[in-house]
Amino acid sequence: MRRVELAYIAGFLDGDGCIMLQLVPRKGYILGYQIRASIVFYQKLQYRSFLEEIKEKLIYGYIRERKDSMVEYTIVGLEPVESALTLLYPYLKLKKKQAQLALEIIGRISKKVRASNKEKIDAKLLMELSSEVDKFALLNYSKRRTNTSEKVKEFLESHNLLNPVETDP
Amino acid sequence: MRRVELAYIAGFLDGDGCIMLQLVPRKGYILGYQIRASIVFYQKLQYRSFLEEIKEKLIYGYIRERKDSMVEYTIVGLEPVESALTLLYPYLKLKKKQAQLALEIIGRISKKVRASNKEKIDAKLLMELSSEVDKFALLNYSKRRTNTSEKVKEFLESHNLLNPVETDP
Repeated sequence: MRRVELAYIAGFLDGDGCIMLQLVPRKGYILGYQIRASIVFYQKLQYRSFLEEIKEKLIYGYIRERKDSMVEYTIVGLEPVESALTLLYPYLKLKKKQAQLALEIIGRISKKVRASNKEKIDAKLLMELSSEVDKFALLNYSKRRTNTSEKVKEFLESHNLLNPVETDP
Repeated sequence: MRRVELAYIAGFLDGDGCIMLQLVPRKGYILGYQIRASIVFYQKLQYRSFLEEIKEKLIYGYIRERKDSMVEYTIVGLEPVESALTLLYPYLKLKKKQAQLALEIIGRISKKVRASNKEKIDAKLLMELSSEVDKFALLNYSKRRTNTSEKVKEFLESHNLLNPVETDP
């Protein structure tokens, strides 16, 4: 039964959902940018219970009503998205490449964070992964995308974070 | 395995596909209108093989490339649509009502045709079913719909097909 339910959700995500990886500028962050992962489903307001049913299966995320009579179910964050995509991956078809790349990028971040015992990744890894996020955007045919790896690089360079200048002792 | 595949297709149909019942004016028809059933899936041209995979499961229908770089998989006709919807019905959620109503209407037509040993339905049944098709359109939120049961009624009345006037012997 569970496989059938996950296959249904995978089909629905392939048809009408969205998997996103984005470079988000964050004022409080030393590295200036955060990699944000999300999965979004939306429907007409009257089908809110349908999205609640999906949320029960995928556990994470939240449902909110928009002002345009639509309701949106969003899963945000590396761990929640990793959890949902791991469940859906075997059944995805159209968005399988996106799911795979997202899982890879999230996996690399988690590994680094575990290894360094820090909560954040370093500038070098952020720069590497930003290029991967660019590839992801190509898979999604994202238009009007302004926060690219180029922007991240500019920020890191202008803050001397990529190749720190050695200071005199 | 098969249930998982059908659940996936049902999810995809709920997300991005379309089940239609339409009243189509037909010049060669005595009753003036035909009830047409169809299921449509579409995708970017590059995903043609994805639609071919779905067609392998649902058997009926044809795939055609549109001029706008999209590819369309259409199942048309009462029997083909009945066959596909019977397979998908257990797994559908958002379009379950549409599927149920379509299966009912198709079932009533088939029963009548078998009973009368004729290929066509009669004016009274067409009139009854046209009202059901109106209900179906409401479920689909069809806009710009011009061929309503009212139009069918006008045609049948203007051709004396609903309440035939008795002629002098």
